[in-house]
Amino acid sequence: MSLRCEVLAVGTELLLGQVVDTNSAWIGEQLALSGIDSHLQVKVGDNPARIVQALRDALTRADAVVVCGGLGPTHDDVTRDAIAEVMGAELVLQPQLVEVIRAMFEARGRAMPEINSRQAMVPVGATVIEQRRGTAPGLVCPVGDRVIYAVPGVPHEMREMLERAVLPDLRSRSGEQASIVSRVLRTWGHSESGLNELLADVIEDLDGVGNPTLAFLASGIEGLKVRLTAKASDQRGALALLVGIEQRIRTALGSTVFGVDGETMESVVLDLLRERGLTLGLAESVTGGLVSARLTEVAGASTVLRGAIVSYASEVKHEVLEVPAGPVVTAEAAMAMAVGARRVLGADVGLALTGVAGPTEQDGQPVGTLHVGMAIGDEVTATSARLPGTRDQMRQFSVITALNALRLRLLDGAGPHP
Amino acid sequence: MSLRCEVLAVGTELLLGQVVDTNSAWIGEQLALSGIDSHLQVKVGDNPARIVQALRDALTRADAVVVCGGLGPTHDDVTRDAIAEVMGAELVLQPQLVEVIRAMFEARGRAMPEINSRQAMVPVGATVIEQRRGTAPGLVCPVGDRVIYAVPGVPHEMREMLERAVLPDLRSRSGEQASIVSRVLRTWGHSESGLNELLADVIEDLDGVGNPTLAFLASGIEGLKVRLTAKASDQRGALALLVGIEQRIRTALGSTVFGVDGETMESVVLDLLRERGLTLGLAESVTGGLVSARLTEVAGASTVLRGAIVSYASEVKHEVLEVPAGPVVTAEAAMAMAVGARRVLGADVGLALTGVAGPTEQDGQPVGTLHVGMAIGDEVTATSARLPGTRDQMRQFSVITALNALRLRLLDGAGPHP
Repeated sequence: MSLRCEVLAVGTELLLGQVVDTNSAWIGEQLALSGIDSHLQVKVGDNPARIVQALRDALTRADAVVVCGGLGPTHDDVTRDAIAEVMGAELVLQPQLVEVIRAMFEARGRAMPEINSRQAMVPVGATVIEQRRGTAPGLVCPVGDRVIYAVPGVPHEMREMLERAVLPDLRSRSGEQASIVSRVLRTWGHSESGLNELLADVIEDLDGVGNPTLAFLASGIEGLKVRLTAKASDQRGALALLVGIEQRIRTALGSTVFGVDGETMESVVLDLLRERGLTLGLAESVTGGLVSARLTEVAGASTVLRGAIVSYASEVKHEVLEVPAGPVVTAEAAMAMAVGARRVLGADVGLALTGVAGPTEQDGQPVGTLHVGMAIGDEVTATSARLPGTRDQMRQFSVITALNALRLRLLDGAGPHP
Repeated sequence: MSLRCEVLAVGTELLLGQVVDTNSAWIGEQLALSGIDSHLQVKVGDNPARIVQALRDALTRADAVVVCGGLGPTHDDVTRDAIAEVMGAELVLQPQLVEVIRAMFEARGRAMPEINSRQAMVPVGATVIEQRRGTAPGLVCPVGDRVIYAVPGVPHEMREMLERAVLPDLRSRSGEQASIVSRVLRTWGHSESGLNELLADVIEDLDGVGNPTLAFLASGIEGLKVRLTAKASDQRGALALLVGIEQRIRTALGSTVFGVDGETMESVVLDLLRERGLTLGLAESVTGGLVSARLTEVAGASTVLRGAIVSYASEVKHEVLEVPAGPVVTAEAAMAMAVGARRVLGADVGLALTGVAGPTEQDGQPVGTLHVGMAIGDEVTATSARLPGTRDQMRQFSVITALNALRLRLLDGAGPHP
């Protein structure tokens, strides 16, 4: 049984939604990668009694707690006091720690406000984690055979301290050497329940063993993710467990798997074009520039993407892209837009989107209609789809649907090759 | 004593840090605005026993729990089962609910996968919250004199259901009548510490009273928000408290306040153009279509925005927009792009952005450089800025900086009036 560690994020601003707690998510990921189980993460306000209770509850369930935030100098920073109470220990000023903090201020040409000496209060029995980025030191606080780690809430201070001191200490306490390895297959083309049906055999086999585990995650414009997590005594063993299952999943899902882990549809499509020596020009209507904005988020997109014509007004479609007069939410218009974009932008490949995001229908076409036009070499084609969701979602789905159509065309070997 | 409501977010992906739990933060804000206390928010994985324990623990501390996520159709969606166990009730298939879900699929031209009938399982004694956006219905589940609300984890489904059904139910259960009113002033042009200095008097006065409260929130492309929250025995009293302070803040901040509450820079600029009867054409380089994508997120943008030329390759700037040969990251190039966009797109106003988002410098200009060109009537002008942050942040800041420059020009009365 591996070490269990909970995370307690402290701050009234987190409960009120003024700040989103991203620290817990990051800590959770680090714990998982270190093979430490994290079954619960809690947010609590700047209230001493409630922090004490939350710490006590956590220590009944877990071997360790990382408490994050509430180590600042002001009156509402009460994490130190709460930990001292849980330890049943006194909080004592460490004069040499005051001098460290004072020196940090002086190095920035400022006098230390007296209030900052509060940050040098340490519960008797606790060990200090040296502060390198901010003025708040961290704390390692034994409670019986369990332990509380206190780290600052400022993300970059917290991360540095966790990597340098907390994770190594946790790993050394953890008796076992379990390694957890995770892989995400990104897919587009099946619904969550569709994936469930295609992978029914794999799921049944895994349910019997419980390792690796399999989960689906709908992530909008990021695709529908299939996450595999394997656990073994070392990284190699965990990877070996993954590989077999991954192959079964890839066989079942075929070309709907477009990427792995950090690969996005954008980066995959740009790579395919780059490998083939092709440049891209876009014509966007329904998405209003979103395809172009997403592609140019990828550093290095400029070697592939020439640009885009956002033809939001119909006149721009007719006059700039030379789409023939008539309705503009049709497969024919999408093909004409793709040809126009390729010509105006001097690109090898033209990709075009026209459709209806709502709130109301257009040209007699219902909300959700999408036509994707592609011009590659002599082949000009279109694919059409009916997409669900709100205006914003429909636009997001349009982006990944259009890029996926281009990806499948390129994989099919369509168009000119260098 | 007001009603206490905890939030339980369900999903292994939240614990592993693959998804940041933004739902709890949003729910926490809504609870606070409804005068309902939320002292603890918990994240737990897709594990039935742990969800049951987390629900039982929450019900010992609070009058109500909102549990968010785990209502999907697949094998790892176990929130329904966990709630039934906590209620000590059976989970029963509701055939009429299956038909509702089936009809939702058929409306999209698809057959309902059989697995989705799991979403029609309801614990005996629970009430169904009709699903309007996704296929998952919500649940209101009494447990003694306490209550569990189950809502989907998909943010837009969750929000709609919370606003329509959960918050009204919570408010009607809440004995006390305290009204909390909140107002957000959105600003662009000052840093957080700059705001602190400009508002020092207001902050000092409020610190003495504690009501209304004042908070700053840096929100990237959404601007820097100043949030005022007032509490009184009724809505009118709370509003009265707000109004005086809001006026003092507006006087201190002047035209850097661009909007209130849900108003975005995009909607404000579109409204200003619409009022003046002006259409807009964009030329984007550094932002790659992001300005256009943001503007077209606003329903009704089509009456103002003609379109955009994303001139990512320099040749597109020279050939399509007729920017003179030479460097393209200059104020002169930005002005030529604005004139070109206006001409090509047949718009009244041209707005153009050129700059360097990184990762490396370009044309001898450092990362963070932004030039904004504007063509309105006979006036063609440019403003320049050096923006901080990563590649992505720099692009986001560029969007709001350029739109803000256009806003200030329009407010100054520049350009033709109808």
